[in-house]
Amino acid sequence: MESLSVALGSRSYPIHIGPGLISSRELYAPHLAGGRVAIVTNTVVAPLYLKAVKQASAAVAEIVVADGEQAKSWQGVEQVVDGLIAARLGRDGLVIALGGGVVGDLAGFAAAVYQRGVPFLQVPTTLLAQVDSSVGGKTAINHALGKNLIGAFHQPRAVISDVATLDSLPERELRSGIAEVIKHGLALDAAFVEWLESSIEKILKKDRAALVHAVRRSCELKARIVAQDEREAGARALLNLGHTFGHAIEAGTGYGAWLHGEAIAAGMVMAAELSLLMGHLKKTEVSRVRDLLKRAGLPVRGPALAPERLMELMALDKKAAKGQTRFVVLEAIGRAALRADVDDAAVRQAVVAAAQ
Amino acid sequence: MESLSVALGSRSYPIHIGPGLISSRELYAPHLAGGRVAIVTNTVVAPLYLKAVKQASAAVAEIVVADGEQAKSWQGVEQVVDGLIAARLGRDGLVIALGGGVVGDLAGFAAAVYQRGVPFLQVPTTLLAQVDSSVGGKTAINHALGKNLIGAFHQPRAVISDVATLDSLPERELRSGIAEVIKHGLALDAAFVEWLESSIEKILKKDRAALVHAVRRSCELKARIVAQDEREAGARALLNLGHTFGHAIEAGTGYGAWLHGEAIAAGMVMAAELSLLMGHLKKTEVSRVRDLLKRAGLPVRGPALAPERLMELMALDKKAAKGQTRFVVLEAIGRAALRADVDDAAVRQAVVAAAQ
Repeated sequence: MESLSVALGSRSYPIHIGPGLISSRELYAPHLAGGRVAIVTNTVVAPLYLKAVKQASAAVAEIVVADGEQAKSWQGVEQVVDGLIAARLGRDGLVIALGGGVVGDLAGFAAAVYQRGVPFLQVPTTLLAQVDSSVGGKTAINHALGKNLIGAFHQPRAVISDVATLDSLPERELRSGIAEVIKHGLALDAAFVEWLESSIEKILKKDRAALVHAVRRSCELKARIVAQDEREAGARALLNLGHTFGHAIEAGTGYGAWLHGEAIAAGMVMAAELSLLMGHLKKTEVSRVRDLLKRAGLPVRGPALAPERLMELMALDKKAAKGQTRFVVLEAIGRAALRADVDDAAVRQAVVAAAQ
Repeated sequence: MESLSVALGSRSYPIHIGPGLISSRELYAPHLAGGRVAIVTNTVVAPLYLKAVKQASAAVAEIVVADGEQAKSWQGVEQVVDGLIAARLGRDGLVIALGGGVVGDLAGFAAAVYQRGVPFLQVPTTLLAQVDSSVGGKTAINHALGKNLIGAFHQPRAVISDVATLDSLPERELRSGIAEVIKHGLALDAAFVEWLESSIEKILKKDRAALVHAVRRSCELKARIVAQDEREAGARALLNLGHTFGHAIEAGTGYGAWLHGEAIAAGMVMAAELSLLMGHLKKTEVSRVRDLLKRAGLPVRGPALAPERLMELMALDKKAAKGQTRFVVLEAIGRAALRADVDDAAVRQAVVAAAQ
């Protein structure tokens, strides 16, 4: 098992990574304050891991939500809160989020608002959740008019990442998670990108040691940024590399058609092309970005949408109350920067270039 | 105008108290960060003060919810959040809660979860909100199974308490607010109790200077406690004097039949009787508590409910996932203390004594 820490003062917490951790009593024990424990999971994950987590955590209640993004709704939060009340969970209780990003976001948000905040643990079972969404305390549900429009910053007490749970993960979802791993490297760590270039086949084969390293390094990089900027007032925005384009792709194709990581992959190619146009990145570096994503089995071109449509969707995203939209560009492989002075023509050109 | 500060580090904020403040542009100006401003209010307050606040704050949107406690619901939050999205309020925006405790709790909670938290101002227009609920950052909605079961700690950027708005407040609601003023004195400040004993008639007549002092001293006392214990891990619980009994009265009579302050008033008499039984308070001091509340026109006896029924409701409250219930007792006029070692027989006896 490998462990690292997210340094946030009194809200600091450990991330444990390794195979088989999900049933390790001693990882849950420090977080059981004598109160009641409830597990939130979904219909796909429950048959696989609920029993093991229940035994290890001595949970008295389980709340099983529907699979898929639609669980991140007001109705989903109501279901979870009703379950916590039925379980008579007090402020000394513990909520365990067992599943992928949707379960983590939903259960984390319910834990944030139930009795004005109760402790929770993240037990992520997808690569995307292990390398990204379980770390950093962002919780949210969706609104018909925008993803993650309602939420809270609520840090977990610990993250328990069992890489053996990735054995049950469909390959397409594994690749989607790899997109976020690559994102962390491209944005923050050139050496990690080199390691990914030499290890991508191992990760795709779910080699345990390679998975542990990929998860660990991603979490380290993200934890460092979160420690600097818990509430995304600055540096944390660098983690949104490819996301402005990616969100437009997800919205333009109808949510769910493209997995988040797939949209981010194509979005990172667009961001790299934009960085090239702005004179930051070399053509060979853009090729490295494209090649790595391609080898990971990820899309490097956007969907069959007119560039104008993507531009529209990005403008809409900007308008949709997200405050000022800035682009994350690459100044080099492993060094992202935020730029506000990006003109529409360059963005459009980048979209077109990425389609070639 | 009088001003004081709630000292919470980077979340510190001012409370301004005085007549006519509601239309004072310079009080809103420091909180307008260039983003859009939305006012949340209700159908009773809107005709009275919405126009003035809109002009002073340059708000672009108004969200008017139903009057009464039922607005503190999931539906209420959805209405407010939908309104904030329609107003295209960004993270640089501002939510203004204009109204009593219900509006403040609801708008504050919506501001806490919209985009994971946007700034908000409290502009309380009832005495109860001015002396209590607008200060300290507790926001919440109700659940069918319990009041304030869902919420967040989200501090406002400022509280603007215009005592002239109390001119429009029905007398019964004024008295209900006075119960919380008396509570602050009884729990924390003997000299303030003496001042109240000599000034209660002035307050009831809405004498401006007396109102300003009552609001100011209440806010000072509460702010000191909140600064010590923002998330109610300890001292803040002292502010719940009379509330364990009071909540049972509210639940037993059906929410709304007794105003919150009325239930708290009778609850404080029970707490005083309990303190007498436990040997903390003298009989003359219990009489002082009762007399002051009576002079304020507040009930000093519980409703026509069997003591057993109140005991049941208190046990239910304890079970309803609130963690360990402790009683706030008075060790003297102006000095409350938390006690966990209170036996049921003494509680029952106090309920009976308060009914005499």
